[in-house]
Amino acid sequence: MSTEQQQQQSQSQSQPSVEVVVATPAKVSNSKKSKKESQSFTLKVPKGTKDWADKDMVIREGIFSTLTSLFKSHGGVTIDTPVFELREILAGKYGEDSKLIYNLEDQGGELTSLRYDLTVPFARYVAMNGISNIKRYHIAKVYRRDQPAMTKGRMREFYQCDFDVAGTYDSMVPDAEIMNILVTGLKNLGIKDFKIKLNHRKILDGIFEVCGVQNEDVRKVSSAVDKLDKSPWEVVKKEMVEEKNQPESVADKIGEFVKLNGSIRDVLKQLSDNDELMSNESAKTGIQEITLMADYLEAFEVDQFISFDMSLARGLDYYTGVIYEAVTAQSAPPKDAAEKKAKANAKANANASKSSEEDASEYVGVGSIAAGGRYDKLVGMFLGSNSKGKAAPSIPCVGVSFGVERIFSLIKQRSELVDKIRPTSTQVYIMAFGGGEGWNGFMKERMVVASQLWKAGIECEYLYKTKANPRKQFESAEKSGCPIGVILGKEEYPQGKIRVKVLGTGNEKDDGDLIDIADLVDVVKGKLETLKVGGVDDITRLMGDL
Amino acid sequence: MSTEQQQQQSQSQSQPSVEVVVATPAKVSNSKKSKKESQSFTLKVPKGTKDWADKDMVIREGIFSTLTSLFKSHGGVTIDTPVFELREILAGKYGEDSKLIYNLEDQGGELTSLRYDLTVPFARYVAMNGISNIKRYHIAKVYRRDQPAMTKGRMREFYQCDFDVAGTYDSMVPDAEIMNILVTGLKNLGIKDFKIKLNHRKILDGIFEVCGVQNEDVRKVSSAVDKLDKSPWEVVKKEMVEEKNQPESVADKIGEFVKLNGSIRDVLKQLSDNDELMSNESAKTGIQEITLMADYLEAFEVDQFISFDMSLARGLDYYTGVIYEAVTAQSAPPKDAAEKKAKANAKANANASKSSEEDASEYVGVGSIAAGGRYDKLVGMFLGSNSKGKAAPSIPCVGVSFGVERIFSLIKQRSELVDKIRPTSTQVYIMAFGGGEGWNGFMKERMVVASQLWKAGIECEYLYKTKANPRKQFESAEKSGCPIGVILGKEEYPQGKIRVKVLGTGNEKDDGDLIDIADLVDVVKGKLETLKVGGVDDITRLMGDL
Repeated sequence: MSTEQQQQQSQSQSQPSVEVVVATPAKVSNSKKSKKESQSFTLKVPKGTKDWADKDMVIREGIFSTLTSLFKSHGGVTIDTPVFELREILAGKYGEDSKLIYNLEDQGGELTSLRYDLTVPFARYVAMNGISNIKRYHIAKVYRRDQPAMTKGRMREFYQCDFDVAGTYDSMVPDAEIMNILVTGLKNLGIKDFKIKLNHRKILDGIFEVCGVQNEDVRKVSSAVDKLDKSPWEVVKKEMVEEKNQPESVADKIGEFVKLNGSIRDVLKQLSDNDELMSNESAKTGIQEITLMADYLEAFEVDQFISFDMSLARGLDYYTGVIYEAVTAQSAPPKDAAEKKAKANAKANANASKSSEEDASEYVGVGSIAAGGRYDKLVGMFLGSNSKGKAAPSIPCVGVSFGVERIFSLIKQRSELVDKIRPTSTQVYIMAFGGGEGWNGFMKERMVVASQLWKAGIECEYLYKTKANPRKQFESAEKSGCPIGVILGKEEYPQGKIRVKVLGTGNEKDDGDLIDIADLVDVVKGKLETLKVGGVDDITRLMGDL
Repeated sequence: MSTEQQQQQSQSQSQPSVEVVVATPAKVSNSKKSKKESQSFTLKVPKGTKDWADKDMVIREGIFSTLTSLFKSHGGVTIDTPVFELREILAGKYGEDSKLIYNLEDQGGELTSLRYDLTVPFARYVAMNGISNIKRYHIAKVYRRDQPAMTKGRMREFYQCDFDVAGTYDSMVPDAEIMNILVTGLKNLGIKDFKIKLNHRKILDGIFEVCGVQNEDVRKVSSAVDKLDKSPWEVVKKEMVEEKNQPESVADKIGEFVKLNGSIRDVLKQLSDNDELMSNESAKTGIQEITLMADYLEAFEVDQFISFDMSLARGLDYYTGVIYEAVTAQSAPPKDAAEKKAKANAKANANASKSSEEDASEYVGVGSIAAGGRYDKLVGMFLGSNSKGKAAPSIPCVGVSFGVERIFSLIKQRSELVDKIRPTSTQVYIMAFGGGEGWNGFMKERMVVASQLWKAGIECEYLYKTKANPRKQFESAEKSGCPIGVILGKEEYPQGKIRVKVLGTGNEKDDGDLIDIADLVDVVKGKLETLKVGGVDDITRLMGDL
């Protein structure tokens, strides 16, 4: 790798990277004193990856913990699949994006690749184990050799949090529950300002058919529509006409449909009023399904979060039914207020069909924070055909994937929350005060006290120094941010007494309460009931509260 | 890959593997109706990997949760590093085992490899971020292209649970705490029958020096000693003399030393009584350090779990101080009692120096379930040298790694525990009973009730069927193993009434309590206080109790 490349990579990362000359033993295994070789390289993590630590780690674990509780409360079980799959399992599942798959080196044996998402491994698992129904969640890393954009949260290694329901069930019942999970998940994470864009592949297919798109062109026209969240209609139309060879009249007709968005009931009415569309079998089926789901979403009281939006197409090929994507305005770059207003006016004029109070396009451009849909045929791709060459029936699936990195960025912006996070869970700092003749620092005594607290489930620490002065110990206690100090005094401790002091009060004259050592656990537990701070439990609570 | 290879691999795995002919669209991205290509392959996971699900997953999460609580209670913070590292980071760290490293394919860009353990990435992290001290835990997968032996728990992808302390501290203070964490961790996991073998690299080096081993031969002689847990002394001696070219007198002298094992105080006395050994600087330092640690281990009341054992050498090169390894007799294959007794007698005669009541060699042969040691120079390998060519001071480290897969196997054997595990956390199953004229199945009504319970944090499910008969619904409730049924009656529900029934009592005549819908959450919460079952919280508790 050239130095130039190295520099480019360092710049694209927030991680430190240090140029070092490292001496490594030439043959570590054979001799301690062999000749050293010098090796020069930049100390860094691979491009598009990062280390997670400190408060970031607490926030991320808080996200996992919040979503895990939610998934479990809906009867979800979790599975874990290997980080790499046989290469042939991933082949033919991701269309053009297959080029982003990380391959492992052929070191003799099977050809394998790092997983690209959690959905294909899930489908492989369901097919391989002959499972007919399962509700499973999976929180794990996936890998894409994409051009990383750290600031936008696009990484080469990143987490997905997936919940999927596999099985043959009554129409829209699991689909509606997944929508409920999507809305509740974002609310539980304290995401305030989001909308769920909803569409149906069958309606979209019907629209394309009605507009005169040939069957074989449907996917490529659909992928053009998918760009409407980033590009204006004119650009998308140009792509349809010039790159995808659609007649202009076809594109214009599509343009009228994809402008439709608003509340489910309103858009359903507009679609149902369109006789041409209703005469199309595919569209009709999709509209009936959304009509049924609307009932269920109202029962769950989540319908007000939904924007039924004909411009939502979703890139992945395997979707066959409802598709959805959560977008938020929360992290949008600050815009000039005047520009925003002008845009809103222009929109109000151009789009007479808009009926919901809020417009999902307000939320566009910051990227989706969760998405999913129904994919009824993916498991079938692994089930293959039976001995008579007849395809095995597939297992229908519907699911949602939360984008952890983007949700993380939103939460990280909430400084009132971040300020309250401590990376450690330490509740008690144990100190020994003494000095003078015969003072040994009470190292063993501090260990005995710590043992007592640990056994009672109380998180505690002490300074790893046999003779430490009080100031050093207080500094460490303060650095840990823990609420309680326990002090072993040179004279007091041998008499069975110990001090418990509430830290961080600023009252330096307070020496704490002198108590019997035998009462220590009870006293500390009592004080912690009101004082306990830090850790993932805390962040989970705070995330919902603040 | 040949069919023969495939079959061999299937046999080495407990996972299902299915031969299928899979039809994949030739160009998925371009057309829905393109010509299909047939592809034949075995549906399986890569060699040496497996899917985790059901109860296994609950047990494993219970292990993680138990150890995480412990690590946090000692002030640990967690970090997460990428699953692959730059290849040069891993180079020269694992001696002969480097051949087991998984490389990623060179797809243009950096050369990277999957991590082999969590220790080297930790050292890289500490060095890269200029950290002077940290207590960190890391629970994550590591990768080794070893010959898998599923039955022995040797996998190519497996978890490690590591806790390490980096920083310059007073002698043996963090080391003793790590030993405490090791013992407490195994106890909290319900592992009953374990011993910690303890040794010190400096004592071992001193012994080799005193016995006449040349400096450049120390590592290879040490790696021969390391095999004493699997092979008898005669075999190891043969290796020393014939393969490692040591004079027989040297080997015999080593043989006397490595037989030494027992309680820390006893073995310390025997070593201290050996003037020749005490005149060796390295041995003397090691003995002094263990003497100091013995004090601390007594303060922690964990000394009785330790067997100070001169035959423990540990394979990894980077250890520089104390080394330890937890072994258990729990999963030893049943032995002929007579043979066992004869062996014990023979040992009693042969090994007069044995003084602890239990002998660690009883625990030998089933593999270590946790291990670690002090490694003071690894971080320094990444810090390199400064501009004047002077090596930067390293950051001393000491740590322990729990072997999740082996601990898992031990826990899995406890059928009284496994029987109590449920894969889901579902507490309430919501059912609708009705029929006849105008019966719509109360699908929306069940959703409304479920919403109420979910909002109150109560895990619940219902059948994904609009009109389901009572038997089907009871069967599903039973299958989920949840303790409470909530029943919406066709006549009762419209009158604001709902039934709450305790499940699994076998009393079919019990129709449950008819209550006001408004009281549902309170009534269910009340019943759950005594009935709640399942999930990771439960397994964590059970693991300690049973």
